[in-house]
Amino acid sequence: MRIAIVGCGQLSRMMALAGLPLGIQFSFIHDDKSQNRDCVQGLGIIEYSPDKIKSTNSYDTKAIAQLYQALGQPDCISVEKEQVDLALLQALADFCPIYPCVAAIKACQHRGEEKQLLTDLAIPTSPYFYNNGAKQAVQTLGYPVMAKSCTEGYDGKNQWLIKTPSDAVQFDKLQIEDYIIEKFIEFDKEISLISVRSQSGQIKHYSLTENHHQQGMLTHSIAPALNIPDSVKLQAQHYMESLLNQLEYVGILAIEFFVVGDSLMVNELAPRVHNSGHWTQLGSITCQFENHIRALAGLNLGSTEQIAVTGMFNLIGTKQPPFDALTQNSKLYWYNKAPKAKRKLGHINFIAENQQLVKQQMIQLADANLSLTVHH
Amino acid sequence: MRIAIVGCGQLSRMMALAGLPLGIQFSFIHDDKSQNRDCVQGLGIIEYSPDKIKSTNSYDTKAIAQLYQALGQPDCISVEKEQVDLALLQALADFCPIYPCVAAIKACQHRGEEKQLLTDLAIPTSPYFYNNGAKQAVQTLGYPVMAKSCTEGYDGKNQWLIKTPSDAVQFDKLQIEDYIIEKFIEFDKEISLISVRSQSGQIKHYSLTENHHQQGMLTHSIAPALNIPDSVKLQAQHYMESLLNQLEYVGILAIEFFVVGDSLMVNELAPRVHNSGHWTQLGSITCQFENHIRALAGLNLGSTEQIAVTGMFNLIGTKQPPFDALTQNSKLYWYNKAPKAKRKLGHINFIAENQQLVKQQMIQLADANLSLTVHH
Repeated sequence: MRIAIVGCGQLSRMMALAGLPLGIQFSFIHDDKSQNRDCVQGLGIIEYSPDKIKSTNSYDTKAIAQLYQALGQPDCISVEKEQVDLALLQALADFCPIYPCVAAIKACQHRGEEKQLLTDLAIPTSPYFYNNGAKQAVQTLGYPVMAKSCTEGYDGKNQWLIKTPSDAVQFDKLQIEDYIIEKFIEFDKEISLISVRSQSGQIKHYSLTENHHQQGMLTHSIAPALNIPDSVKLQAQHYMESLLNQLEYVGILAIEFFVVGDSLMVNELAPRVHNSGHWTQLGSITCQFENHIRALAGLNLGSTEQIAVTGMFNLIGTKQPPFDALTQNSKLYWYNKAPKAKRKLGHINFIAENQQLVKQQMIQLADANLSLTVHH
Repeated sequence: MRIAIVGCGQLSRMMALAGLPLGIQFSFIHDDKSQNRDCVQGLGIIEYSPDKIKSTNSYDTKAIAQLYQALGQPDCISVEKEQVDLALLQALADFCPIYPCVAAIKACQHRGEEKQLLTDLAIPTSPYFYNNGAKQAVQTLGYPVMAKSCTEGYDGKNQWLIKTPSDAVQFDKLQIEDYIIEKFIEFDKEISLISVRSQSGQIKHYSLTENHHQQGMLTHSIAPALNIPDSVKLQAQHYMESLLNQLEYVGILAIEFFVVGDSLMVNELAPRVHNSGHWTQLGSITCQFENHIRALAGLNLGSTEQIAVTGMFNLIGTKQPPFDALTQNSKLYWYNKAPKAKRKLGHINFIAENQQLVKQQMIQLADANLSLTVHH
């Protein structure tokens, strides 16, 4: 069996490393020539996606057939990111299934469509306006609001916090195309739920994870999230199941939530394995990467049971694999990327007896300067 | 960091798959042209070992230097089997450390030397004679005895059970060179202990594992082994520590024991990751493969704590990866080898609430005909 993945980053790397032990082979579609492919070097076939025909902005059928051959005729194709060219996926869908399906990726790759989907399913999300000008939006939403590019944002990029009328004027002057403006949510906590749906419709949830960001980038996660009532957990799982079933989803889906009091509000969706699920590599019987692969391959899903309280610490800008930081209860995952400030270059997972001890270890890692982003 | 391993089989494969996530790169020395290299294809550099100079039975210095370069100048070299050419290792030792050291591999690759080492350390093993003729040996040992080639035996090959005077005459007629004859032990159970020693001398033990063989081949293991008194466990760990420290060992060492009543007798040693330790991939915080790599790389060892009762079922002669056999509590490891009867082609690990349930699942796997060797 062979699985192809669009993208050559660390998520593709970790999917392949989870699937290779099962005897599954991998191919990677290098769809972004500005991106380095060091992460997946040696783990399978790497092929550039063909150029689009300029006049029609579509793909030549022959070129797609050649790509499919060059990829080693994969049994299915998946993605490591939502920002992929849907026309490419649609063209490849003539040759093998795409998991999750193109419609699911489409719904998650555009913040406007994502908001609409959530609204249709009665899943709470912050009130928003689409392409309506900041001046207009704040009349209903008040200050502060967040403006976000519909398609360009990740790791906090292409987002604008608008706190004052002059911020609003400034934003409107930028003439951003395709954006939403949403009410800024004063949340108590950011959590995420990572779940997986098999081809037969079986669903498994991981524990809720508490996430901490700095400048829009995830710095660390703790699972399970502390002080979340069971009712909230069940609510999150219910929202997840609505989405997975509505989208006839196959694979891992991540939902980021804001916790406000005892209620949840969806921040965003990711139709793929997710940074806030990296802890599952150590803390769960089956990690998110293996379960994504199992779902794609039509296998029974693996148990998502958690084995211990787990922390995940992103190595952001860390120049070398920090081997000295490894303890008997921690594991290192290094991505083989060229070091650069503010770049995620690896992560450390560790288990501990309770969340308090996990937090202490986070502080130690930060103090050891393993990340350019030090946070207490 | 780069690690080179002598051998291109499934153990090399699983060491690489355990080390790649840490950003460590791998090279493999293909020292046996009759062996296929499918197991490690794509996981690193593969280089043939140079031919020996016929007149001196040694290696040309230039050829060894070229090999070391071609391997990508590894930081250290290890082995996936004890039957490696010591002259090759000794020549490579001029370029980087060999782990475990050549003396340790030498001691374990020859049954006569192994017996001597055990005797020197007062570690019980069955009484034996070296190259002394079966007729002579049975005068002291009585019947039955086992004759074993000193260097050629694995998976029950090159072993002869001698039950009668005519068997003894038959064996002596074979004119085997370099063998031992040992008393046949009527054991209650076969168990093994897998342990790891770091460069700084730290030692960690995995749980004792109960092993089941058929025709000399391991078919399945259960960990922890049932009904082993703590005193026996401590005794096994004590023997292990004597050996590890005596040999200044770095990496994983496996000891196979016979349990006879409340006492232990060493069956054999393996200076490498071992089939009876495969269960650690699912059942332990850190698997034997990762801990071997951590030891080689000079890192802190990972926890060997067991997370659940675990079974390991060898897929012997199974033609296809048995994806249908996967349950939520099991994992498949497939080696990508060409299928052949009596060949180990993969294994399944699974966890269960207790040893009884593990045994039931073993029987189900055997009934599903996943192995040519069916055992109840």
